[in-house]
Amino acid sequence: MHYPLPLLKLIELLRKLPGVGSKSAERFAFDMIDWPEQDQRQFGELVSTLGSRLQRCRLCGCFTHSDRCAFCDDATRDTTTLCVISSPRNAYTIERTGEYRGLYHVLGGLLSPLDGKRPEDLHIDALKQRITTLGAKELVLALDSTLEGDATALYLSKQIASLPLNTSRLALGLPVGSSIDYVDGGTLAHALVARTRVSGE
Amino acid sequence: MHYPLPLLKLIELLRKLPGVGSKSAERFAFDMIDWPEQDQRQFGELVSTLGSRLQRCRLCGCFTHSDRCAFCDDATRDTTTLCVISSPRNAYTIERTGEYRGLYHVLGGLLSPLDGKRPEDLHIDALKQRITTLGAKELVLALDSTLEGDATALYLSKQIASLPLNTSRLALGLPVGSSIDYVDGGTLAHALVARTRVSGE
Repeated sequence: MHYPLPLLKLIELLRKLPGVGSKSAERFAFDMIDWPEQDQRQFGELVSTLGSRLQRCRLCGCFTHSDRCAFCDDATRDTTTLCVISSPRNAYTIERTGEYRGLYHVLGGLLSPLDGKRPEDLHIDALKQRITTLGAKELVLALDSTLEGDATALYLSKQIASLPLNTSRLALGLPVGSSIDYVDGGTLAHALVARTRVSGE
Repeated sequence: MHYPLPLLKLIELLRKLPGVGSKSAERFAFDMIDWPEQDQRQFGELVSTLGSRLQRCRLCGCFTHSDRCAFCDDATRDTTTLCVISSPRNAYTIERTGEYRGLYHVLGGLLSPLDGKRPEDLHIDALKQRITTLGAKELVLALDSTLEGDATALYLSKQIASLPLNTSRLALGLPVGSSIDYVDGGTLAHALVARTRVSGE
């Protein structure tokens, strides 16, 4: 292909994005060429300085552009409830539900022997220390419903068993809007076991 | 949303890409955060310097990172055949077919009264001059099969009617691999009228 070198490199880098193949990468690259120069410059500067501009909160590990993140800095949040998540992105997903007003703690991954993620690679000691410092009363394990998530939740609950707090995991059940005919057996089994009472005593 | 400012801006810019909504933009942004710093820097630099690094060939208007593009610089190409395209990207699409060995000429758009694209906005004078300079014998109008493409082709063919050269447009017909039951009526009509002989005299 006769692409000039800068264009070729740009396409190559865009292909690294999740779910972006050659065709989309080319489409994106050609679109970027037509962006106003100001947007190009701003975008370029943002990406090349991401590492230094986007830091981790030294308390919880969430993204921030200052010393402490917006969650830890928010005086209106419930500091006795701590939500354990695997990556900073999870916090934004949970925020979007509007159902959580406590603080977060980023583990930095999930236990996975295959990927070489061992307990000492996760911020578990920092979590224990934070529970004590905050005097946390409730711990919500908001981890993926996967083999790795289950293993991590199990490991964590054992590690903190001696601490005086209530620990919970996210409920398993039918996704909202799903038909029971199309939900997998495992999910349906969980939904049945954890069925919620609608009337009667 | 509690996104730190750099992340918020990055997502906002990524949403400008064609076909990218909020969800994808967020996904891309979070992926970029995890890129190696070297990739972030290279990508950022490429995008912010796109304007100066990626120039237009002064002969044909295709993309290049030097004075003349790879097509005009290629001594093996047929300089008597000129393919008229609306944007530089078209050249790469045509190259991919492997069926064209002539030179290109970028118009810089298609006639469109609604979008304010008038004949004087297109590089038509440069095209006429180039036809004379090259002594071109054939002109291929490789323009979109749209209202704007048709109007531009019609206008161009009138403009160059006095010049001694053969002018053609891309054939209209069935896309390869299509079923006639699912092709629109206009396309099928064109395919019928322009049917190609397979046997007989």
